[in-house]
Amino acid sequence: MEERQRTRRPGGRGARVGAAVHQAVTDLVNERGYGKFTVGDVAARAGVADSSIYRRWGNLEALLADVVLTRLNARSPMPDTGSLAGDLRTYAAQVAREITGPDGLALLRLAVALSGNGEQGVQARDDLLAERARQLESMLDRARERGEHAPDALGVLDHVMAPMYIRVLFGLGPLTADYVDGLVDRLV
Amino acid sequence: MEERQRTRRPGGRGARVGAAVHQAVTDLVNERGYGKFTVGDVAARAGVADSSIYRRWGNLEALLADVVLTRLNARSPMPDTGSLAGDLRTYAAQVAREITGPDGLALLRLAVALSGNGEQGVQARDDLLAERARQLESMLDRARERGEHAPDALGVLDHVMAPMYIRVLFGLGPLTADYVDGLVDRLV
Repeated sequence: MEERQRTRRPGGRGARVGAAVHQAVTDLVNERGYGKFTVGDVAARAGVADSSIYRRWGNLEALLADVVLTRLNARSPMPDTGSLAGDLRTYAAQVAREITGPDGLALLRLAVALSGNGEQGVQARDDLLAERARQLESMLDRARERGEHAPDALGVLDHVMAPMYIRVLFGLGPLTADYVDGLVDRLV
Repeated sequence: MEERQRTRRPGGRGARVGAAVHQAVTDLVNERGYGKFTVGDVAARAGVADSSIYRRWGNLEALLADVVLTRLNARSPMPDTGSLAGDLRTYAAQVAREITGPDGLALLRLAVALSGNGEQGVQARDDLLAERARQLESMLDRARERGEHAPDALGVLDHVMAPMYIRVLFGLGPLTADYVDGLVDRLV
């Protein structure tokens, strides 16, 4: 077993460990909530040594930040449908699916909790928001280049993302397609 | 001292204990974050016995729920200015002051954390939202009786409250008067 692992390229094993650790964090956030588990709990759940986590992430906050950043960003690639309304509807539907999915609420709660948790958390929040804003701006720029009138990225945050985030965070019913399309149509 | 306290009416002492315990909870949420303190910590900070807290609130979740409910609701009385735009601008400015004040972020984070924390938390969230919705509906009904066109309470949540909540939760700059008025004006 040890021999077999040594012959695999490091990236392969690193990626597997990363995925197992990320999933363990998401599961523990779901089951116990933020602040209720340790690096040791994550390691045990993921089947890795504590030292592997400390070596790669440094501490629990940095690991949590990495999980939120990776999952909330990687799951929303930006659409390019040819019209601003189409792009925003598709993007909003992706975000709605992501935050109402099995890990969505846990990830949103983690994003909120991290924002108030020292430098690592603030850095993670800033990275997450900067990445989202960059993605959104490129979509809005494409619309302006086509001659469409486009709101700014903060307008999208305020009137499309924020209502969905708050409805999920406060447990206010499902985000239906009609509801999500309505948010976009009122903005555009 | 003991003699002096006995001669006070029970409501007076109860109210003082309640206020001290509520402030202790808010301070601990601010300093350590949700999930990082116990009933014993609250009791020590408030200068009361653990048993006083268990007798009055039953458990920590119920106490936290009571704090969020009391503070977020009591601090936003509904205005009655004679026009919907005036009412909503005044109300939104009150909410903005409340959630950007010294305890605002801690209370918002607590509201989010509670929504995912068992029956007590869900009950607290539902009570908070029902009370807010009831207050808002009475404001919107008054507008309709004056012949004004009014959105529903969820529209106010989505386009006035949610953007302010998310900007504070994610630490996105101050809520200026222009920004808050702009949210109301776009809705009305």
